[in-house]
Amino acid sequence: MSPSVKLNQELLRLHPAACRALSRLGLDLFFPKGIPLQAAQAADTQWNATIGQCTDDDGQPMPLPIMARRLANMNSKEVFLYTPQGGRKDLRQAWKKHILREASLFDYDNVEMSLPVACSGLTHGLSIAAELFMDSETHVFLPRPRWGNYNLIFGVRVQPQQHNYELMTHQNGVLKLNIDDLVTQIKASVKSGAKKLVLVLNFPSNPTGYTLTKEEADRLAEALDGVFVDVSEDEEDHPVLTIVLDEAYHGMEWEDDCLRESLFFRLSKLNRRQFLICKVDGSTKEMFFFGGRIGFLTFATSPEAASILEEKVIGCIRSAISALSSVAQSLLVEALNSDDLYEQQAKNRDVLKERYEVMKSSLAGTHLVCWPFNSAFFVIIETSLDSEQVRLELLQKGVGVVSISSMNAIRISYSTVPASEIPQMVQIIEDTLKKHS
Amino acid sequence: MSPSVKLNQELLRLHPAACRALSRLGLDLFFPKGIPLQAAQAADTQWNATIGQCTDDDGQPMPLPIMARRLANMNSKEVFLYTPQGGRKDLRQAWKKHILREASLFDYDNVEMSLPVACSGLTHGLSIAAELFMDSETHVFLPRPRWGNYNLIFGVRVQPQQHNYELMTHQNGVLKLNIDDLVTQIKASVKSGAKKLVLVLNFPSNPTGYTLTKEEADRLAEALDGVFVDVSEDEEDHPVLTIVLDEAYHGMEWEDDCLRESLFFRLSKLNRRQFLICKVDGSTKEMFFFGGRIGFLTFATSPEAASILEEKVIGCIRSAISALSSVAQSLLVEALNSDDLYEQQAKNRDVLKERYEVMKSSLAGTHLVCWPFNSAFFVIIETSLDSEQVRLELLQKGVGVVSISSMNAIRISYSTVPASEIPQMVQIIEDTLKKHS
Repeated sequence: MSPSVKLNQELLRLHPAACRALSRLGLDLFFPKGIPLQAAQAADTQWNATIGQCTDDDGQPMPLPIMARRLANMNSKEVFLYTPQGGRKDLRQAWKKHILREASLFDYDNVEMSLPVACSGLTHGLSIAAELFMDSETHVFLPRPRWGNYNLIFGVRVQPQQHNYELMTHQNGVLKLNIDDLVTQIKASVKSGAKKLVLVLNFPSNPTGYTLTKEEADRLAEALDGVFVDVSEDEEDHPVLTIVLDEAYHGMEWEDDCLRESLFFRLSKLNRRQFLICKVDGSTKEMFFFGGRIGFLTFATSPEAASILEEKVIGCIRSAISALSSVAQSLLVEALNSDDLYEQQAKNRDVLKERYEVMKSSLAGTHLVCWPFNSAFFVIIETSLDSEQVRLELLQKGVGVVSISSMNAIRISYSTVPASEIPQMVQIIEDTLKKHS
Repeated sequence: MSPSVKLNQELLRLHPAACRALSRLGLDLFFPKGIPLQAAQAADTQWNATIGQCTDDDGQPMPLPIMARRLANMNSKEVFLYTPQGGRKDLRQAWKKHILREASLFDYDNVEMSLPVACSGLTHGLSIAAELFMDSETHVFLPRPRWGNYNLIFGVRVQPQQHNYELMTHQNGVLKLNIDDLVTQIKASVKSGAKKLVLVLNFPSNPTGYTLTKEEADRLAEALDGVFVDVSEDEEDHPVLTIVLDEAYHGMEWEDDCLRESLFFRLSKLNRRQFLICKVDGSTKEMFFFGGRIGFLTFATSPEAASILEEKVIGCIRSAISALSSVAQSLLVEALNSDDLYEQQAKNRDVLKERYEVMKSSLAGTHLVCWPFNSAFFVIIETSLDSEQVRLELLQKGVGVVSISSMNAIRISYSTVPASEIPQMVQIIEDTLKKHS
């Protein structure tokens, strides 16, 4: 009997929706404890001949000096040797503390969550969620517009039944967040017999730069709680909804009415016979560590179910990339444990917030048609005409933007533009678009 | 029409076996050029507002000072910002140069190969090969014994038709490399109608610590060239064999008669209507950079077909983890371009080779039943009795080894044991096993 069978049986008892949400691969995965366990038991032996690493006669790493000289300021063992599968334990604990600090700041009590498993950046976190919870039988609900890589991660890779919900809709002529569409589509799929559903939520959103207001977060949480209202609660084969939170841009909320804390806390108490909540976040944007490639996966669940879900995730990572970058983990764990972290983070955010403010006020003085934006790095501007042509013209004028042809719009990422130069850049964009209107 | 369709059509023309070897996912993959292309075109604009990174008003990264201080000795842009998909171009070129240097040292001319694509360590390279070339229709041939993680990477993950070939066999009472078994099994599968076959070769081998002698390499290459001898060469639906070379321990060959160079060169000229050769290697062991997580995938193919296969690999990486660790790439590219690289590498190898020599001579003076070993970090010792019990007893005596229950054997990794202490360790192992015999 595969070790996965026992894991699945226990998970079904402890968190029914989590088990029933698993894909074929998710069901089959486990973490083989063979060599890692034997190596752990041998850690204190005089001669630990269990593992395929190299150390010198004093047990120290043997990096090439041309590499070591660059990291002379770091602990050689921490950077040149392997780290445990699923990430360093102290790093995972520090990230959990980081999440719980936020829960506490926003007055959420008794948040039950797994120990975050470290992965190789946000994309990896999302693709693990895709592999664990999506296959051809799964109904997946993706926002439109969305980050282009979703099409590979949640489409090409796992080929689920794909549904697209409209993120925004016009209400009385104003573009607003669209909660109805995703709820309506989920309910319709349930009605037509879908048993495994996955909703991907991305707030703050790429490419729109929009995040939920607190009021919208309340409404969304309530609406999600009600998606199974038409299903009898004790139905044997009750459908399950996994909610994957892509929080890549978490912490970059610029308006006072924005939801500041993770949606994870609001959703964590949803019925575990029906729901599984999976938070994907990381240091890439939140800690300004783009080159580090450290993300995390965390589940809202009981401690007993958590250890099983963590094992599934670690088995998935083991089978795909094995250990993560040691240097990046070392840098991040030190930062997370530093008293200066939040002050330094705030300083960087202030720079971005100022750019946001200038962007907003500059746009307000134009006739440009912008989508609502209040967070992350982005604003979407409609072009009415061919956006690719607009992009190429802007390139000639020294402005690089992304064209989104499918919606006749361009995406401006203001996170790299000095605040003092934003008005001039906006002026150029307006002039260019005016020509075409 | 998906961009993948055009790629597949061209690949079929340029390297028929490579296209016909692709899995469902391999066929579907491509690299979406949208934002990366637009970002590349905007690289020189005054305001590059294409990408979700943060830079300060001077275009410099904005790392948290608590992280930056540790890497003050490195180029901040190189370590804190994103690197291109598939790895830095200069790194990929440096690795290609590294491979071609070897080809030249061993007198292989005109080796046609792709530009190596960087991935997140050896496991990742293997799992990419699994995803691109294995699905439920593929017949996969894995060595026995093998690294345990093969069962996840090539088994649980992609669920092919799995065959196990015996790596060693007794010939006149002596354990020898077994070339016949893998060839016989491949031929039998072809005969029974298998169309897509993948052979995984792992030399130097984990867990045996054995690699091919030059003579065995010649015989193996010849035998592989002949696996399709019973199939008409112009058969429309000719079966194809992908050979995945797991060269994690490349460079760690300790005997004069060992094959020193990659098997890639010998196999690279195999008929491209029938064969695809995929080399997986990296810096983990070869450059003693265990914590770095940088591996490479390289194909033996024409320049035109190479660019398509590279795109498939990069699409696969984009969909699974996106960019790689920037710090690790920066360290590795500098090392590869350093004049001191091979001297420093040789120095480390000398330490390991000495341990190997002492291990070999110590074992020679015992009655222990060892498998042939001549490379990598390992030696396998048969235990006749329950190997798990032996392992636990050895633990008590300060010796950590890995037990391989399925073959009643233990694996000793001598790469972490000082040469001067190896005789004592071997003595303890012999005493313990004697008790049980």
